[in-house]
Amino acid sequence: MAMYVVGHKIPDSDSICGAIALAYLKNQIGEPAKASRLGEPSPETQFILDRFGFEAPELKMSYAGEEVYIVDHSELTQAPDDIAQATIVGIVDHHKLGDLTTSTPLECWIRPVGCSNTVIKMMYDFHGVEIPKDIAGIMLCAILSDTVIFKSPTCTTADIRCVEDLAKIAGIEDYEALGMEMFKVKSAVDGTPVRDLVLRDFKDFNMNDNLVGIGQLEVVDLSVFDKIKADLEADIAKLKEEGQRHTVMLLLTDIMKEGSELLVVSDDVNIVERAYGKDTDAGRIWLDGVLSRKKQVVPPLQEAFA
Amino acid sequence: MAMYVVGHKIPDSDSICGAIALAYLKNQIGEPAKASRLGEPSPETQFILDRFGFEAPELKMSYAGEEVYIVDHSELTQAPDDIAQATIVGIVDHHKLGDLTTSTPLECWIRPVGCSNTVIKMMYDFHGVEIPKDIAGIMLCAILSDTVIFKSPTCTTADIRCVEDLAKIAGIEDYEALGMEMFKVKSAVDGTPVRDLVLRDFKDFNMNDNLVGIGQLEVVDLSVFDKIKADLEADIAKLKEEGQRHTVMLLLTDIMKEGSELLVVSDDVNIVERAYGKDTDAGRIWLDGVLSRKKQVVPPLQEAFA
Ligand SMILES: [Mn+2]
Ligand SMILES: [Mn+2]
Repeated sequence: MAMYVVGHKIPDSDSICGAIALAYLKNQIGEPAKASRLGEPSPETQFILDRFGFEAPELKMSYAGEEVYIVDHSELTQAPDDIAQATIVGIVDHHKLGDLTTSTPLECWIRPVGCSNTVIKMMYDFHGVEIPKDIAGIMLCAILSDTVIFKSPTCTTADIRCVEDLAKIAGIEDYEALGMEMFKVKSAVDGTPVRDLVLRDFKDFNMNDNLVGIGQLEVVDLSVFDKIKADLEADIAKLKEEGQRHTVMLLLTDIMKEGSELLVVSDDVNIVERAYGKDTDAGRIWLDGVLSRKKQVVPPLQEAFA
Repeated sequence: MAMYVVGHKIPDSDSICGAIALAYLKNQIGEPAKASRLGEPSPETQFILDRFGFEAPELKMSYAGEEVYIVDHSELTQAPDDIAQATIVGIVDHHKLGDLTTSTPLECWIRPVGCSNTVIKMMYDFHGVEIPKDIAGIMLCAILSDTVIFKSPTCTTADIRCVEDLAKIAGIEDYEALGMEMFKVKSAVDGTPVRDLVLRDFKDFNMNDNLVGIGQLEVVDLSVFDKIKADLEADIAKLKEEGQRHTVMLLLTDIMKEGSELLVVSDDVNIVERAYGKDTDAGRIWLDGVLSRKKQVVPPLQEAFA
């Protein structure tokens, strides 16, 4: 029986590229594996897949009775709905340790680095398996995406060294140019339904038994949102009600200015204001220097909820 | 600030030797660390420490405000009581994934192998740090203990290869003889208070919101228990009441016959009988081939509770 290798719900590039890269590695070391996904690839991810000649992994929502290798999270809310009926054989991740548990021993490759694909590169090195050119390409793009081309405070020297190694393997001379091309694709919002934008990179968190949804859109210039910001705000308010969430926030991140505008709807906006030490202005807060949901947005909010 | 490296409550040799070995490694790579422990070393562990010239790590029960690297488990019930007020910076383990969570990214080195010290050896190799002779000795003993000199079904080829490497480093020619010597120390029960025996290697598990305590005593010949078995049974019944546990079990493991007698007190003995497919006889069950609590005792019981 082949194991499935799958990232989180509303998959980002790290989840999709990581599933492909890890499934290939597992097959090479004699453990049959198949990449899968829990949702549609984003335009950014599709750009990466097209660029290096990959099909998107199989869309598969149910995993009861299967063996599953989890990529890029360890949270029940981000895992397949029926994960309790599956056997988790491994986790590769770079986030805080979530509430997934198992009833049998497993492998966990979790490191405080900028991207799961950096950890997957360590797995290739550990097993002495050569990374094919095209897989090196998608891994490199995933790392540039998660680290915002090394600008994110989550970026570590391990991520930078990993990208340099992968660029050599993939034969990419100017990976920064490739990264900017990718972020320009990511910045295109025209013609995309507002709900699709809100959900493009959206994660639910359990904060002291409150459901908190946090989305993020990273663009090269925040002015792309000028005409649709009111619609985005109306939509996150709807999303909050639909999911009976305590709070929904949308981070609009300007990767060139290196900061984020936070749009907030909450049952208790004081918690959010306390978390970031700033008052909201009509449901908005500008957070200078904030690029990382994981490192700069989630932990203070979790503290404020505790 | 130095991080503390600490194993589980009622520490076994893996927890104590692992804390010493990992703290040394962390210091070598420029991360100040200090080994500590959550309880007294067992006679087996004391034998290992004496043999290779180590003091027991500092006894420390409270970790609020500290950075902590967790060894040999990922369970709240086995961690320091105030672990929620500490920052978990890493976990090295070889068990099922438990219910510890964090609010910040961390490193997890978890592998489905026979012993945490086998994983710690991988960490030394990853960082390219040489293992000192005496540390190789205590790591080797911890692996022989956890794998019952390679007889346990939890033992993997990685554990065997690791012991062979460590034996070379430590200059130990006959590691099996060393293992038998260690298990003979472990088998001495004369003069030890019954409660001390029950708690010598005792772990609490949360099984579907029921507290289940499981102790294990590994000896080279079960006849050492003939005179005290009734006292052991009376004591686990007391322990069950004192801790408001649903079930307490004590595994008496014969490492030469390769099987275990299970002593059971439970609010619902049917769950236990269902788990192992055998009826109790006056609160006792003989389980042929069962050496491993982790692999052969906990998972079926957890299933039966689910
Ligand atoms: Mn990621
Ligand atoms: Mn262990």
